Amino acid sequence: MTMELKPLFGKVALLGIGLIGSSMAHAMRRADLAAHIAGYARSPETLDAAKRIGFADTLHDTPEAAVRDADFVVLATPIGAFGELAQAIAPQLKTGAIVSDVGSVKAAVVRDVALHIPAGVHFVPAHPIAGTEQSGPEAGFAELFDGRWCVLTPPEGTDAQAVETVKMFWRRCGSEVELMDAKHHDIVLGITSHIPHLIAYNIVGTAADLETVTQSEVIKFSAGGFRDFTRIAASDPIMWRDVFLNNREAVLEVLGRFYEDLAALQRAIRWGDGEALFNLFTRTRAIRRSIIEAGQDTPAPNFGRSRARRN
Amino acid sequence: MTMELKPLFGKVALLGIGLIGSSMAHAMRRADLAAHIAGYARSPETLDAAKRIGFADTLHDTPEAAVRDADFVVLATPIGAFGELAQAIAPQLKTGAIVSDVGSVKAAVVRDVALHIPAGVHFVPAHPIAGTEQSGPEAGFAELFDGRWCVLTPPEGTDAQAVETVKMFWRRCGSEVELMDAKHHDIVLGITSHIPHLIAYNIVGTAADLETVTQSEVIKFSAGGFRDFTRIAASDPIMWRDVFLNNREAVLEVLGRFYEDLAALQRAIRWGDGEALFNLFTRTRAIRRSIIEAGQDTPAPNFGRSRARRN
Repeated sequence: MTMELKPLFGKVALLGIGLIGSSMAHAMRRADLAAHIAGYARSPETLDAAKRIGFADTLHDTPEAAVRDADFVVLATPIGAFGELAQAIAPQLKTGAIVSDVGSVKAAVVRDVALHIPAGVHFVPAHPIAGTEQSGPEAGFAELFDGRWCVLTPPEGTDAQAVETVKMFWRRCGSEVELMDAKHHDIVLGITSHIPHLIAYNIVGTAADLETVTQSEVIKFSAGGFRDFTRIAASDPIMWRDVFLNNREAVLEVLGRFYEDLAALQRAIRWGDGEALFNLFTRTRAIRRSIIEAGQDTPAPNFGRSRARRN
Repeated sequence: MTMELKPLFGKVALLGIGLIGSSMAHAMRRADLAAHIAGYARSPETLDAAKRIGFADTLHDTPEAAVRDADFVVLATPIGAFGELAQAIAPQLKTGAIVSDVGSVKAAVVRDVALHIPAGVHFVPAHPIAGTEQSGPEAGFAELFDGRWCVLTPPEGTDAQAVETVKMFWRRCGSEVELMDAKHHDIVLGITSHIPHLIAYNIVGTAADLETVTQSEVIKFSAGGFRDFTRIAASDPIMWRDVFLNNREAVLEVLGRFYEDLAALQRAIRWGDGEALFNLFTRTRAIRRSIIEAGQDTPAPNFGRSRARRN
């Protein structure tokens, strides 16, 4: 008996080939998921870089050209551009094609994109929870999604076979897959991703603006904890602007909880309530342990930053 | 011509042999800084672990015994115990000895310790800006201080030779040394270390308490940013309780600034002010670059967490 192994898709179009899009291309090559990978980017610099690296079979400067005859189309630009992109490609989509995305917000995205998807085309929204603080086509690598979760938020009535295919796609990219309601996704990611980014951006801004502490002092003594926040605060500004503009409700809700808790902590410090501080600081240790046990972070101290000089 | 290289100190007493104390012992061995290293810990478990690892020449269950005949005495317990420790050892300190510490807060510590230091003994407060989220004698390693800064905050009138000796000590432990006023130290560390820890502890607490998001979801999807905060929030609870109780004023001041800035950001999200968000998110990127250029963090994406599966 012979088993014929063929790529999952004939042609895949990546609309956006930054960190996530280019990593998907590398992961697709690794697992032989596409017979043809087409990449679209707006800027000539991005297209040149992609050409040099060679992760796509064809490169296009319009989304319409990229999606022609594609079986799987992935929106991978900052989410603010999704609506316009979906509108532009709609007339070119072939019947039976699957459209997906990698946006960090789902409710707003599903709303903006879904209304442009023609009958006979399946829309399966997705969000791979993976990334680094770097951006652009040079930042991508095949292993980015390994062991990470990818959340699918198909609206009710989505074609079951299309959902299965997208699940299979992400599994073969190295991820585990979970299905979720779009609104629930947005609140889960609000606490696990959006608020952490907001807080990190904010504290780095606060540090930059303190008159009593020089910039050079902030940099020199950043190993006390601050430097960890600067990694997240170095994430792509356009991507994150669009996340906050599109997940306003959930972000403001979780932020309200964060405020409340911080006020209680502030009060404990003001009144010297050591027990309240100790109790919180003990409780938070357990979550770290669970994250490590779940394989979602390294157990190595300091994230395994080299022990060598200049670690 | 022969140069006689001899240890910087005859006997060094480490009062506290957790992460920092044990790392100092390893670093002292590496650079031959002490003819004799004496360690003190209160708990039998810590003393047993230290004995097994073998980083000290003698181990003691009272601070008085550890400091006898010591040339250099370092307070390395949580700072809440410093006053009592200083009082206990005072009668045993030999003339000409240098007392130092590794506390993360300086103004309160200098006040609590200085009043117990006898005439003829020099007190040179110090703070090595280094650590990991682990604690205890097993967590220590010789390279912890390499390339990190150590801040000395000698009060006016401190013996210049004693300050020079402590400077030399930390340089030979691998650090760079800076002198600073104690109050200024406390505000600098407030923003670079204490507030980052407070925020990290707080957000991990908020995540644990959300009723709409399960603990298992927080853990699964932590790679979106949250996991970074859990590392810091896994730091030693007693040490950090004491930091906040002893640096109240500076912490509350910096926290006030953090609040103000966060309120502005919250408002920008509520009103859809993308430009304000984009401007902040762009500005914060530059600080990350400076920290990497200053050798205070790794340039590797995701702190160089392995690219392998389970990164």
